[in-house]
Amino acid sequence: MESSKNKSKLWGGRFEGQTSTLVEEFTQSLDYDSLLYAQDIAGSRAHARMLAMQGVLGSDEAMKIIAGLDQIQEEIESGNFLWNQELEDVHMNIEKRLTELIGPLGQKLHTGRSRNDQVALDFRLFTTSALTLWQEELLSLIRTFTDQARKNVDVILPGYTHLQPAQPVSLAQHLLAYVQMFKRDFERVGDALKRTKVSPLGAAALAGTTYPLDPQQVSHEVGFKDVFSNSMDAVSDRDFVLEGLFSGSVIMTHLSRFCEEIIIWSNPGFGFILLPDAYSTGSSIMPQKKNPDVAELIRGKTGSVYGRLVSLLTTMKALPLAYNRDMQEDKGPFMEAHKTVLSSLKIMTGMVSALKFDSLAMEKALKSGFLNATEMADYLTSKGMPFRQAHHVTGKLVSFAEKKGAGLEDIDLADMKKFSDLFEEDIFRVLDYKEAVNRRNTPGGTGPESIAVQIRDIGEWVDIQVKSGKCGDSLG
Amino acid sequence: MESSKNKSKLWGGRFEGQTSTLVEEFTQSLDYDSLLYAQDIAGSRAHARMLAMQGVLGSDEAMKIIAGLDQIQEEIESGNFLWNQELEDVHMNIEKRLTELIGPLGQKLHTGRSRNDQVALDFRLFTTSALTLWQEELLSLIRTFTDQARKNVDVILPGYTHLQPAQPVSLAQHLLAYVQMFKRDFERVGDALKRTKVSPLGAAALAGTTYPLDPQQVSHEVGFKDVFSNSMDAVSDRDFVLEGLFSGSVIMTHLSRFCEEIIIWSNPGFGFILLPDAYSTGSSIMPQKKNPDVAELIRGKTGSVYGRLVSLLTTMKALPLAYNRDMQEDKGPFMEAHKTVLSSLKIMTGMVSALKFDSLAMEKALKSGFLNATEMADYLTSKGMPFRQAHHVTGKLVSFAEKKGAGLEDIDLADMKKFSDLFEEDIFRVLDYKEAVNRRNTPGGTGPESIAVQIRDIGEWVDIQVKSGKCGDSLG
Amino acid sequence: MESSKNKSKLWGGRFEGQTSTLVEEFTQSLDYDSLLYAQDIAGSRAHARMLAMQGVLGSDEAMKIIAGLDQIQEEIESGNFLWNQELEDVHMNIEKRLTELIGPLGQKLHTGRSRNDQVALDFRLFTTSALTLWQEELLSLIRTFTDQARKNVDVILPGYTHLQPAQPVSLAQHLLAYVQMFKRDFERVGDALKRTKVSPLGAAALAGTTYPLDPQQVSHEVGFKDVFSNSMDAVSDRDFVLEGLFSGSVIMTHLSRFCEEIIIWSNPGFGFILLPDAYSTGSSIMPQKKNPDVAELIRGKTGSVYGRLVSLLTTMKALPLAYNRDMQEDKGPFMEAHKTVLSSLKIMTGMVSALKFDSLAMEKALKSGFLNATEMADYLTSKGMPFRQAHHVTGKLVSFAEKKGAGLEDIDLADMKKFSDLFEEDIFRVLDYKEAVNRRNTPGGTGPESIAVQIRDIGEWVDIQVKSGKCGDSLG
Amino acid sequence: MESSKNKSKLWGGRFEGQTSTLVEEFTQSLDYDSLLYAQDIAGSRAHARMLAMQGVLGSDEAMKIIAGLDQIQEEIESGNFLWNQELEDVHMNIEKRLTELIGPLGQKLHTGRSRNDQVALDFRLFTTSALTLWQEELLSLIRTFTDQARKNVDVILPGYTHLQPAQPVSLAQHLLAYVQMFKRDFERVGDALKRTKVSPLGAAALAGTTYPLDPQQVSHEVGFKDVFSNSMDAVSDRDFVLEGLFSGSVIMTHLSRFCEEIIIWSNPGFGFILLPDAYSTGSSIMPQKKNPDVAELIRGKTGSVYGRLVSLLTTMKALPLAYNRDMQEDKGPFMEAHKTVLSSLKIMTGMVSALKFDSLAMEKALKSGFLNATEMADYLTSKGMPFRQAHHVTGKLVSFAEKKGAGLEDIDLADMKKFSDLFEEDIFRVLDYKEAVNRRNTPGGTGPESIAVQIRDIGEWVDIQVKSGKCGDSLG
Repeated sequence: MESSKNKSKLWGGRFEGQTSTLVEEFTQSLDYDSLLYAQDIAGSRAHARMLAMQGVLGSDEAMKIIAGLDQIQEEIESGNFLWNQELEDVHMNIEKRLTELIGPLGQKLHTGRSRNDQVALDFRLFTTSALTLWQEELLSLIRTFTDQARKNVDVILPGYTHLQPAQPVSLAQHLLAYVQMFKRDFERVGDALKRTKVSPLGAAALAGTTYPLDPQQVSHEVGFKDVFSNSMDAVSDRDFVLEGLFSGSVIMTHLSRFCEEIIIWSNPGFGFILLPDAYSTGSSIMPQKKNPDVAELIRGKTGSVYGRLVSLLTTMKALPLAYNRDMQEDKGPFMEAHKTVLSSLKIMTGMVSALKFDSLAMEKALKSGFLNATEMADYLTSKGMPFRQAHHVTGKLVSFAEKKGAGLEDIDLADMKKFSDLFEEDIFRVLDYKEAVNRRNTPGGTGPESIAVQIRDIGEWVDIQVKSGKCGDSLG
Repeated sequence: MESSKNKSKLWGGRFEGQTSTLVEEFTQSLDYDSLLYAQDIAGSRAHARMLAMQGVLGSDEAMKIIAGLDQIQEEIESGNFLWNQELEDVHMNIEKRLTELIGPLGQKLHTGRSRNDQVALDFRLFTTSALTLWQEELLSLIRTFTDQARKNVDVILPGYTHLQPAQPVSLAQHLLAYVQMFKRDFERVGDALKRTKVSPLGAAALAGTTYPLDPQQVSHEVGFKDVFSNSMDAVSDRDFVLEGLFSGSVIMTHLSRFCEEIIIWSNPGFGFILLPDAYSTGSSIMPQKKNPDVAELIRGKTGSVYGRLVSLLTTMKALPLAYNRDMQEDKGPFMEAHKTVLSSLKIMTGMVSALKFDSLAMEKALKSGFLNATEMADYLTSKGMPFRQAHHVTGKLVSFAEKKGAGLEDIDLADMKKFSDLFEEDIFRVLDYKEAVNRRNTPGGTGPESIAVQIRDIGEWVDIQVKSGKCGDSLG
Repeated sequence: MESSKNKSKLWGGRFEGQTSTLVEEFTQSLDYDSLLYAQDIAGSRAHARMLAMQGVLGSDEAMKIIAGLDQIQEEIESGNFLWNQELEDVHMNIEKRLTELIGPLGQKLHTGRSRNDQVALDFRLFTTSALTLWQEELLSLIRTFTDQARKNVDVILPGYTHLQPAQPVSLAQHLLAYVQMFKRDFERVGDALKRTKVSPLGAAALAGTTYPLDPQQVSHEVGFKDVFSNSMDAVSDRDFVLEGLFSGSVIMTHLSRFCEEIIIWSNPGFGFILLPDAYSTGSSIMPQKKNPDVAELIRGKTGSVYGRLVSLLTTMKALPLAYNRDMQEDKGPFMEAHKTVLSSLKIMTGMVSALKFDSLAMEKALKSGFLNATEMADYLTSKGMPFRQAHHVTGKLVSFAEKKGAGLEDIDLADMKKFSDLFEEDIFRVLDYKEAVNRRNTPGGTGPESIAVQIRDIGEWVDIQVKSGKCGDSLG
Repeated sequence: MESSKNKSKLWGGRFEGQTSTLVEEFTQSLDYDSLLYAQDIAGSRAHARMLAMQGVLGSDEAMKIIAGLDQIQEEIESGNFLWNQELEDVHMNIEKRLTELIGPLGQKLHTGRSRNDQVALDFRLFTTSALTLWQEELLSLIRTFTDQARKNVDVILPGYTHLQPAQPVSLAQHLLAYVQMFKRDFERVGDALKRTKVSPLGAAALAGTTYPLDPQQVSHEVGFKDVFSNSMDAVSDRDFVLEGLFSGSVIMTHLSRFCEEIIIWSNPGFGFILLPDAYSTGSSIMPQKKNPDVAELIRGKTGSVYGRLVSLLTTMKALPLAYNRDMQEDKGPFMEAHKTVLSSLKIMTGMVSALKFDSLAMEKALKSGFLNATEMADYLTSKGMPFRQAHHVTGKLVSFAEKKGAGLEDIDLADMKKFSDLFEEDIFRVLDYKEAVNRRNTPGGTGPESIAVQIRDIGEWVDIQVKSGKCGDSLG
């Protein structure tokens, strides 16, 4: 006699033992799967319609199935659906309910389909939504950084290399560097999307099916363009998840870099920014503290997204064809990474738009850092001294000024001439910080014309993305 | 005027902005923190008692506080506690409730303590429990493997290198190899515990405190032996979490190796094991399938634990002293890894105890793999031929036998003599598989005496661990 | 007085201490840098030509510089160049030699350029070459797999899921699944190349330059199309390296999957392939062994490439703008990963083209695995039974056959009818393996028409790539 | 006929094909192996001696073998040994040379041994040396940090949390926090050593051997205490390498944290340290720069060591028993990580001992950061105000002072009293930074007595390690 429990498992026919609760808990994927209900139902609707078009189902049958699916979606969204962990996954939960609602016809929906291609479609739809949301948020973030850049073209701060003051730059130039990173992120996510929006339905368990399915039709119905080329690849490919996790990792890398700057810049030794209250917290023991917790958390969560990429790479390594249960471990990593990436992008947009910059603190940092030394070297070069020698002479003058506790601009011309005859009165204009920034007007440089071009170009590029509707209506 | 919302934040005194819901959701740690309620309360009890012993609190005050904490624990465990995400973390939720219950006295509990040392203690207590549970499960697993080894001393199967048949071994020897891995795991976890069971309470925010605390007393109360040596290290050290994650990663590596063997061995081409129904599943589309899903999932989840180790290593890299909010990202990775490691150990114990081995299938594999070739080479060496030459001659004979479709034991002595004069009639006893196994009786080898020693030694070692009570009563 | 040693360092003007040998060894990047000599010289040639076109150098000066560079390249390639570790990197080694050859003019080459943008260009050129080589090898690998597929359309083997026999598939279908993976790899590498072939020259140290440079001209000279948009991004962007490492990681994932199959398939329990001698090795102690070492090494080295991706992600996390010395750690990881990926691709191509498949062994595996069970279930469904029920009935029949030690095709019709009245004589044709494969002729399935389409499509796609010259002349 | 090339391969007897150069290059491990020559020879000497003691070799034979090995070691160390890549690995290169030197007897050395247990012993010896060197360098580093702490007990700087000024601490306390990290590292490496110093010799290929070997004797000869318990585990265990890589990763984490501080502290906005010239470099384009390159490189190389740990974890995942060629990929990762860890420790010791701290800059940072706010809150608490309320009142006073551009110590008592009646004249002594530090004298706090205890304890601990000779003579 068969246990009543195993009766409810679809593959129970041949099994005589009893799956322990611990194993059931361990193997179920409902925690993550249940987040795929909308995708699962969308895929099922498309499958039912296609089956009817191909004559595998009657059109009345398809209509009944779709009506049943509609009702299930409503039940789930209104909180009236009873999820049953014993049924293992989202597919079985929905199919069982469908059969309750419309009788044995509900089982026909599975014709020509396996959970292997079904879950692949569901997760491709989910990943597509996630990556599209990232793109939308990247555009918002780009606009926010660009707005801040536009407002701060005339603010000059030390450009750092090795976190040492190097050359004066416009704050706009600094912010626009991040815009370029996020633009690459947008494009990288777009490239990942090309390989995500490919329908695997029709691959069945691994070999294709004997039913006269039309995979292209299903792909069209769910909003994809492409279909799988090989059934064994279709059910065992998780490249699209890896690409999502990698794109997300690079996004987090970029965000972590600006977070590091927010954290350093809000230390009183710098004081370049005033942390908006909404994005900082206090201390339970130290009343004077205003901590950049939000920036720290985004920086800290970067590790979490990297780890998720490592998880799935490791899981996929050396798996023979075709589907293996290990692959179930794609959903947790991606879904959690998605949540982190999406929140981080949104919060960064809010935080950056609320940032206030302290141009006086920046000016102070400029003066104490010999940020016009390169100008002096270039000046000497322009007068005919080979660059390496000009660099050497300037180095000597920096030492000289340092010992006097002065800036380069404070040295007498007479003293300068002791180091090189080439110095003339015009050196003092050269040493002015503002002038130094303005002179760097070649394409991509920190000069105002270059920055104007950057801002114009990025604006046009954003407009094109929005108009092309590539990443959804919410940007319209 | 202060917003009523910020009034409820403890550090709200100086803040004027409003923390958005998104940021609140992003920065809260309650999801994971709330799992630390028992540890938080245990630490608070110990702190209150110590404060009373040191005269910082009256003993009646401490008693009231402890009574309040007891009630809160009861409320939480009976599901009657209202968690409030706005209060950010477990510490604030409990303290707020305590103050409701016993009035302003509740706030005195925080005397000489900061959330920085408090959360470090809570998480050290949690990690201690987790690692102790792993040790218990490792002992169970060792006993299960040893039991199976004891039952299968006489079963011989091909020992593989490069997954190619190499030399015949006892199934017991194969299983006892895993016992050694799990024994190392037990010891490695024990080493991690030494550095986990160190109380940080008394470090306060980062610099120690002006109250006359007795950190040693708190450590004793919570069941630890050691206390922190340096307050700045105490609040910023997460080595113990890293060690836990690494130990867990190596445990998963070992489990994944046996899972790979379960998966390969249950393929019909091997057929060495019969998968117990409770640890396998069927296919929704292919009725004949019996899939080793549980073994696949443990193998797949190995990647997940590795990823969590990477997460925290990345998060901790290059953080300046002392506490940084990034460190909040230690809990999620460890708690999830803990769940995976603990379940995997338990399930593996159940699965291994239920495994049935097919000795006939193993015998068949032995015969087709020339698994006595090394015996032949050793035979020639024992007759005086240098080993390398013996290896060469045997290689020629394997080719000869392969072309005839026979085993080495099926070649006529006359034919053998064409390859070397040293062959005599006694070669045939040498080529017997059972004999080959029995001959390897040096310490650690696959021979029966060596195996008996291994089984005896591991039994004694397990007994010592259990008697020492190192890993809790549940083993008694 | 200045030490003669520091005189040779370009930034020695201001330094008075002495860099210890250990530090020199630690900070030098010459080990990897010296592999960039060709790229460094190509970039310098382009820079010199552009400086002349812009009037910064005289055209005779540019010619002298280029002649000097040509001579240096010849010296390096003929082994007559003396690398000096004290000069730290490739740039300084070449510049010093140039100055020896053509005098102080050599120093003018550095006008408007910094090592920050120079090394970024060098490494973008190197990465471009590497990725292009990968693309070439991916095309060769695709052709090799496709050739093997073409030859093995009629060979049928078990398609596995969970490494359990699932449904019969054509060996061609199995091989063509890998073709799809490598095609995605090709495209993914191509997407990475778009973001790699962007010239950063003109960004100088971080802020752009005051010289009237023409970055577009340099980009054109070195064979790139795009130029940097923002100087601070240009010197601190290593996304292109990350993308290369990620693309390489996914390539290795795919290779490791086929390696796993080679290893399992060459075990005698499967016996599906005969390992070519050139791609296997023997044992020093076991004369009968023929080990799939090459496949194991590719599988093992997958971990190494993953690790390199983790290295650079970790290194880049939370670096403030602009250049930081940490970034020097991009070269080692990528160069080693490149070597591994390139060798693995080449060796896999050789190994796959030399593989011999044993169709008899595959046939034997088919018969023992009930690989026609799905056919039976589909048969019942086609006769009107709901699929879930058909699956259940077939499961019962598999149990029945298993107990008799027979295949489904060996059960009498009368016996079948005890399980369902729907069985008729035509069931036996349905259970034939060849027929089962042939029936799955929907797009992407394992049927012969589907396979013919796949082979035709991939051939056309390869031709387009080759003709477009996207990945170099060597494919012509 | 056999090719002359394959004749030289030991397993060539049965092979007819030809291994291509590319494969040879791919599979050889000589690049790393050759660094194991000393370990290989030491292991062989011990093996030969044991074989003689057990009567397997004559004692004159053993003496001839050992003399031959001595000569080979001399040849290698004097650069007169010809490494032959065709012979694949270090073992074969040495054995071939031995046979040239002493004839066929050379081959007898391999009796009862396989390359599987031989390479495991070699690499355990190598890892033992490496970890012992790390321990030595950790002790040096601990002494260096402790020396700096001793010199800087009276220097006070802001203790940071969230990189925001929190409470004043002694510089000694800050430095001693690192001492605790390195002490844990020392102990962790010691724990790894326990599991590394286990001799696997006698496990042979995987099953043990028929020769009457004495594994304990070999273990003793090479300086280990323990021997393997199970032959299959002995040849397939790489836990010791993983533990080495993990210990190294945590060491790098700790170093990276101090590097981050060096980098931030040497920025002019902090100015807490003066970078010694020997550990910083200049810029080729900016004459004023003094860059913390060495600290940046150690920070950057942290990623490289993490990556190596990921590499080997990934490689070991899901490998079936016993030896697989994948395991060859243990040497590269560990050897490179070893080089990085060892150099980083040495360089950090040099750099820290050369660091000069600027106590004036630290004082300036103290004053501008309200670092006595906690003192004020504690003051109020000590007068009976509940801590949370005291925190709130102090927060209000910080706002008040901030608006006046003053410190808390600059507010009139009268003004203070507007916020709370509890303020009296004694508040001003409480607000003194030095006093604040001195008051935190509980165990582990930043007060001078606590620091004296820490310094004394660590000194005693170091003495014990040195005297126990645990990590070699060089410390004597």
